[in-house]
Parts: sequence; structure tokens; C-alpha cells
Amino acid sequence: MRIHQESIGVRTKGKGTFEITDQIQAIVQKAKIAVGTVTIFVQHTSCSLIIMENADPTARHDLEAYFDRLVPENASYFEHDAEGPDDMPSHIRMVLTRTSEVIPISNGRMQLGTWQGIFLFEHRRAPHQRKILVTTIGE
Amino acid sequence: MRIHQESIGVRTKGKGTFEITDQIQAIVQKAKIAVGTVTIFVQHTSCSLIIMENADPTARHDLEAYFDRLVPENASYFEHDAEGPDDMPSHIRMVLTRTSEVIPISNGRMQLGTWQGIFLFEHRRAPHQRKILVTTIGE
Amino acid sequence: MRIHQESIGVRTKGKGTFEITDQIQAIVQKAKIAVGTVTIFVQHTSCSLIIMENADPTARHDLEAYFDRLVPENASYFEHDAEGPDDMPSHIRMVLTRTSEVIPISNGRMQLGTWQGIFLFEHRRAPHQRKILVTTIGE
Repeated sequence: MRIHQESIGVRTKGKGTFEITDQIQAIVQKAKIAVGTVTIFVQHTSCSLIIMENADPTARHDLEAYFDRLVPENASYFEHDAEGPDDMPSHIRMVLTRTSEVIPISNGRMQLGTWQGIFLFEHRRAPHQRKILVTTIGE
Repeated sequence: MRIHQESIGVRTKGKGTFEITDQIQAIVQKAKIAVGTVTIFVQHTSCSLIIMENADPTARHDLEAYFDRLVPENASYFEHDAEGPDDMPSHIRMVLTRTSEVIPISNGRMQLGTWQGIFLFEHRRAPHQRKILVTTIGE
Repeated sequence: MRIHQESIGVRTKGKGTFEITDQIQAIVQKAKIAVGTVTIFVQHTSCSLIIMENADPTARHDLEAYFDRLVPENASYFEHDAEGPDDMPSHIRMVLTRTSEVIPISNGRMQLGTWQGIFLFEHRRAPHQRKILVTTIGE
């Protein structure tokens, strides 16, 4: 049984989804475990993780449009707006999605389904440098 | 310290919640570890996992009705509808719930609270065969 | 490789967010592992876990106000109201947030980002005694 941990950086271009599946798979293969789990953790409160359909880009486009409607900017009752109108919505969108995700490993590879991809979901308008910690446990 | 992993299949009857608590508990007991965790992972992008009140079926009925309103079919701005009007809402409902869940094990059993059950939440109208990977880690 | 598990109790004062970061960090340090993960699991269906901005209290206030609007009490179609008008909304708010969260450990400490805090999100109006299981795995 052994543990491997490393961090990856993701440069976002502002609001949107950025696929990180290949970077996570590369770390899993480097960890050289046959069976186990990989834990992905994003160290921020204004972006998040999602697992999403990665074949048709319109699916992600629709998802982003949905979240823009579900958590609107400039809600009259928001008090926390020190960093602008996208500040508070970014925290709420993060809470509604995920900060950690745990994915099984077998045969030395992360076992995603056929259509699953892992994405960083950036909720701020401005580009950001984001940090993700990846921890594999297995044997 | 040891790892046990196996997959289970769940046949859904279309939209709704399908309890899998007993199947997961059976795998945990087969793994014969006293203390640890069990990671549950659903390999799809149009169904998801939830932990929910499992005593009164009306609670799940209300939850399903809520999600039908929260993520309506036929939103005018959806472009991704290749598989029908329930296609895009199914991805969004998946993102708003969970793909992985990690539950503690002690005394050889999964430690759910008194009212907690684990459910596969099917978001497509048609029945589907779904695959879930279950990984226990412990000693 | 070793496992450490213990439970913590949280006394809530009714609806709102209650920070538990220090209690989790204390358990992680007691576990004396250099690298690994900590799994946090809440054993209830009417409260949940969130990771949230912990510097400015208005951010949490806005989040709570948002959830009050997103999942209103007294929706006409709710049938499950045996415990009052906050009963069914509490289950839905739980499903929309998290029951388990897995956070990496390195250098003997939980690796949260600068602004991240861990909170129990109480969804019931009345004060409750809540139970959380904390499991560390590492070496």
C-alpha cells in the first residue's frame, strides 16, 4: 500500500470549464499502483470541480449558461461584493458543485466512464492560476 | 491495510431514485476490514449519487419534483439535445448532486446515520443499466 | 500506512453555518501521518458539509440567504412535512451540498487553501446535536 501526492496548476481564461482529465490520468499512471483511489482537491473557494460529459462541447456551454441563470450576479440581497459582482456568485456556484472528488483506480488507470471528463469550473470573470492537489492511495 | 474493489450494476426504470444501500453494505462486509472507508463512484454523466432520508418515500418524491422544477426540460437556451429534451437536464442534475461519495467503515460496517440511505438518482426518462464502482480501503 | 478514526459532535443553534476547521485539523495532527487524506462524513439528512470562504462573514450570510430563496419553505407540491415547513427544504439543501468531503494531508496538516474553511451547514430551524465521523488514512 502506498501514497503518492502532487499538485498541478491550471491557468484559466476566466469563467468556463477547463478539462484536466489527462493531467490526472498522467499522475495516476506515475503512481504505479494497480488498484486504489485518486482524490482530487481544489484549494479555492471561487472555482470548483465537476465531472461532465466531455464529447460534445455544447453540453458544457449549456451547463455554464444554466449556472449563470441559477446564480445571477447583482442579486439585490448580496452584501459580499468586495471583489465585484462575480464575487459572491462564484462562492455559491462552488458550493453547488464540488471541491473534492474521489475516483477509483484499477489496472493502473483511473476508471472514468466512457463519457466522463474531469473539469475545473472557473467562476471568476478574470483569468486565474488555480492549484489542485492529487493524492493516490493503493497497492 | 488492504483494498477491495468490485462493480455493481443497477437497472433503473427511468427517472427516479433507486436505493443501493444494502448492495454497498454487502460489499463492505465481504471486504472484511474493521475500520476504513468505502468510495462509491458512478461511471455516468446522466445519473448520480445521493444520500437521502430513506424512511418516508414522500421525501424522495418531493426531491424528484423539486429537481424537475429546478432544472426544467426544454429551456430555450439549451443547444445540447441530441438525445431528447431530458438529455441536457440530466447532465445538470448530475453536476448538482454527486458522482463520488466516501463513507466511513467501523466495526466492519458502513457507518451511515439512522435515516441515511444511498441512492442512484436516474435522470433519464428511459430505463438504463448503470455501473457503480465500490472500493474499500482499511485494515 | 495507518488509519485513525474518531467522531466529533457539533451543537448547532438552528439554521446557519458552523465552522469545524480547527476540530478537524486537531484530529489530523493527532493522527500523526505525514501524507494522506482525511474523510469527513456527516451522519444526517437535514444538515450538510460545505467548504467555504472563511474570512468575511457576509459571504456566508449571503450564501444562507441564497439557499433560503433557492429551496423555499412551503412549496405547494411538498408532501413530506411531518416535522414542519423546514423539513423537506432541509433534505433538498443537503442533497445540493455535500455529505462527505475528502481533503489531502501533507507535512502532517490538512491542506486547505488560504481562504477555505470547513463548515457544518445546519438546515433545520431548531438547534441540533450533530455527529461527524473523521477518518484519516496515510503514512
